[in-house]
Amino acid sequence: MRIIGIDPGSVVTGLGIIEVVNGTFKVLSYDALKMNSKQPIPSRLKMIYDFCIARIEKYKPDELSVETAFFGKNIQSTMKLGQVRGAVMIAALNSGLRVFEYSPREVKKSVTGSGSASKPTVQTFIKNILSVKDNKMLSDSSDALAIALCHYFNGGEKIPAVKIRGRRQDWKEYIEKNPDKILRRKK
Amino acid sequence: MRIIGIDPGSVVTGLGIIEVVNGTFKVLSYDALKMNSKQPIPSRLKMIYDFCIARIEKYKPDELSVETAFFGKNIQSTMKLGQVRGAVMIAALNSGLRVFEYSPREVKKSVTGSGSASKPTVQTFIKNILSVKDNKMLSDSSDALAIALCHYFNGGEKIPAVKIRGRRQDWKEYIEKNPDKILRRKK
Repeated sequence: MRIIGIDPGSVVTGLGIIEVVNGTFKVLSYDALKMNSKQPIPSRLKMIYDFCIARIEKYKPDELSVETAFFGKNIQSTMKLGQVRGAVMIAALNSGLRVFEYSPREVKKSVTGSGSASKPTVQTFIKNILSVKDNKMLSDSSDALAIALCHYFNGGEKIPAVKIRGRRQDWKEYIEKNPDKILRRKK
Repeated sequence: MRIIGIDPGSVVTGLGIIEVVNGTFKVLSYDALKMNSKQPIPSRLKMIYDFCIARIEKYKPDELSVETAFFGKNIQSTMKLGQVRGAVMIAALNSGLRVFEYSPREVKKSVTGSGSASKPTVQTFIKNILSVKDNKMLSDSSDALAIALCHYFNGGEKIPAVKIRGRRQDWKEYIEKNPDKILRRKK
């Protein structure tokens, strides 16, 4: 099973992909996309979408694990983060991946045993568990790998966040089956 | 010029497309996608994305006009709305459209003359301006048409929200030109 973990952010988005075969972990890729905070949000969203699509096409993960919102921030940054999360999830869903969400606390707890672990602690555990030697790994990358790992530790496929009938949710098929969902009035 | 206006929402997303030729308006389409609020957010996002893509492919608008956030709501609904907006903008950007944003106040003011106009007032003005006779038009649809019209009234192409070099922002091209933007450390 291949899992892509994403730590979404409107300035830095971290991404990590792991492969798990018979309980053995292999890190396939990790990096982070840094954007200019002065760039308009729509073009940043498109960069994030393309960044995710490029990694998904290259490494073909089966499932996306994404961190849920951190609700301590203000409403403007929450809106921005929501938009980034929307772009990330659409990239995964357009590629046929299933989407799973975990809170920051769940991620930290499943990787380190403590829900309030610091970023350096998370990175230390990630390096040990995934056997990565890299003194210059960014916390955005280790956080993304932690999010991917959290999904595996939580049973992988066991908790479906998105129930899609058939392989992909197709709009035309959906609308044929649910004509009442389109609220249209023609003159 | 064809403009698609979208009123994003995690339960109902309104969509309207107008064509403007020499100052004459023509309504090409309007409807609204209603979703089940019990459905998980990722599958709703995919429905919204596919809904937008289907309308864009059919009517080939040049530009997206989308309403900005209403910041009076709580942080959880702001996050949901952000995700919907992300999905809507990615649908437009993936189709090569330019994206423009207007606040609810700007939309109401440009269509009715008052920034605090009620939904029925907006609908009355929309029906008059666009010559639509429809007693059963939903406010989600008239709001979406108002958002499209607001973009035209604000000068259409004059206010670029997204500056994309060339026709589309291509990730591969971008990364070749900006290798420093990828923060990668390999072991």
